[in-house]
Amino acid sequence: MRCVARLIEVTDPEDPAVDDFRDLTTADRRPDRPGGRGLVIGEGRLVVERLLDSPYPLRGLLGERRRLDALADSLEHLDVPAYVVTPDVLAKIVGFHLNRGVLAVADRPPEPDPVRLIESSRRLAVLEGVVDHENLGAMFRNAAGLGLDGVLLGKGCSDPLYRRSVRVSMGHVLRVPFARLNEWPQDLELLGAAGFRVAALAPRPDAVPVGRAGLSRGRVAVLMGSEGPGLSEGALRAADLTVGIPMARGVDSLNVAASAAIVFHAMSEESLG
Amino acid sequence: MRCVARLIEVTDPEDPAVDDFRDLTTADRRPDRPGGRGLVIGEGRLVVERLLDSPYPLRGLLGERRRLDALADSLEHLDVPAYVVTPDVLAKIVGFHLNRGVLAVADRPPEPDPVRLIESSRRLAVLEGVVDHENLGAMFRNAAGLGLDGVLLGKGCSDPLYRRSVRVSMGHVLRVPFARLNEWPQDLELLGAAGFRVAALAPRPDAVPVGRAGLSRGRVAVLMGSEGPGLSEGALRAADLTVGIPMARGVDSLNVAASAAIVFHAMSEESLG
Repeated sequence: MRCVARLIEVTDPEDPAVDDFRDLTTADRRPDRPGGRGLVIGEGRLVVERLLDSPYPLRGLLGERRRLDALADSLEHLDVPAYVVTPDVLAKIVGFHLNRGVLAVADRPPEPDPVRLIESSRRLAVLEGVVDHENLGAMFRNAAGLGLDGVLLGKGCSDPLYRRSVRVSMGHVLRVPFARLNEWPQDLELLGAAGFRVAALAPRPDAVPVGRAGLSRGRVAVLMGSEGPGLSEGALRAADLTVGIPMARGVDSLNVAASAAIVFHAMSEESLG
Repeated sequence: MRCVARLIEVTDPEDPAVDDFRDLTTADRRPDRPGGRGLVIGEGRLVVERLLDSPYPLRGLLGERRRLDALADSLEHLDVPAYVVTPDVLAKIVGFHLNRGVLAVADRPPEPDPVRLIESSRRLAVLEGVVDHENLGAMFRNAAGLGLDGVLLGKGCSDPLYRRSVRVSMGHVLRVPFARLNEWPQDLELLGAAGFRVAALAPRPDAVPVGRAGLSRGRVAVLMGSEGPGLSEGALRAADLTVGIPMARGVDSLNVAASAAIVFHAMSEESLG
């Protein structure tokens, strides 16, 4: 028998010990947490493992016994409670049937200082108005896979640590550092000051095709807006150049995460190839 | 007062006239339609307009009056019923609250012959085992935006006309021609016979980086599998070359639609740029 965290059986769905995991569909609105945004939840083995690997302060786990057993190697020497439940009790606690069968919960760590993130990076994405949690999660997954060093969140972006973003990112939102730019768009000047070229992605006739903009050279930050409104005038003015994705006639735009994949690939292909 | 299709008010949610729109969450399993796959449903103004523009035989519309009014230009001279309902009756008919407020329904047209689609195309995507309806829809949106001529569906792909795929594709699944390859992987020989180079996307150490594989030259078909299992051995053997997306260390894979965006861009950037 291996020592796996502290296994604690829970049979009563009302047990206060599992309050961190209660009613997950509304937990992001919990007012009792710093910033009112609730805890960071990882769902399913893959994402739970990424949460365990991350710098996020782990609070505990909840899952079916066989799912926790499958995580035994990662759980060894962890001094947190791991609550063992049946699928039925699990569904009652979280508020829906969870077929991934295991969850972990962590506290939000302090967000890094944007200046420090900029200084330590070569390739960054800067987002404005990306509200959709799935798109945001998908962009973090692309950023991780395509070797970006971090993400800066400008005005109007959602919380990347929202449960759905974490899930869609496959947990990569926990590995790609991000920071907020509070003065918008003035804080974009921090990038130029650190020697970054800032490339705004926008469907303009004078935009340089993304494959010919030399994005793989030097320090580059790509500035992306959301699908509908795109980037604000202020953000566009703060950029050094505008890049575009060549599109077929009669098609208005790609999904923002698909666009991000194309641009991040153009930024990184030389160094990863 | 303009003549807009045939406006018919419906106040009884049980009215058989609107049966095409009933219980949309289960309609895809309707056994009374050819192939048992139900009708093609477009939701929301944008997708409805794309359905009206498409070669799909339109059967009718259903929506709130202001939503149908907003479509007046597109509906002129159309000889199909347009059922006017309140939001409440609409929800009762379709089985959930639909905040897009308008739907159109069409019959499935006969699928094109793959040989003819191959002959008339220069850039094709060939999919194997893409089951997820959202990924499939997202891939069609990417194919439309990045100028592919068509999609060939190999073994194990879902139906691109499933309601969720239509929605995620933003209706582009109705504009990008697709055909099925029934003998798999033997039918891939049709591509070589038509002068196509077939490039398989696979994370292999000997894969050519996608940006350096000359995918924008000549007739090219890119062969893509699903995220987990990837391409089968038979499909990989049928390809002329293997291409890969350079990835960061420790990240297993991108989402299949994100990968498609990167590859389709590499195929088309020269001609659309």
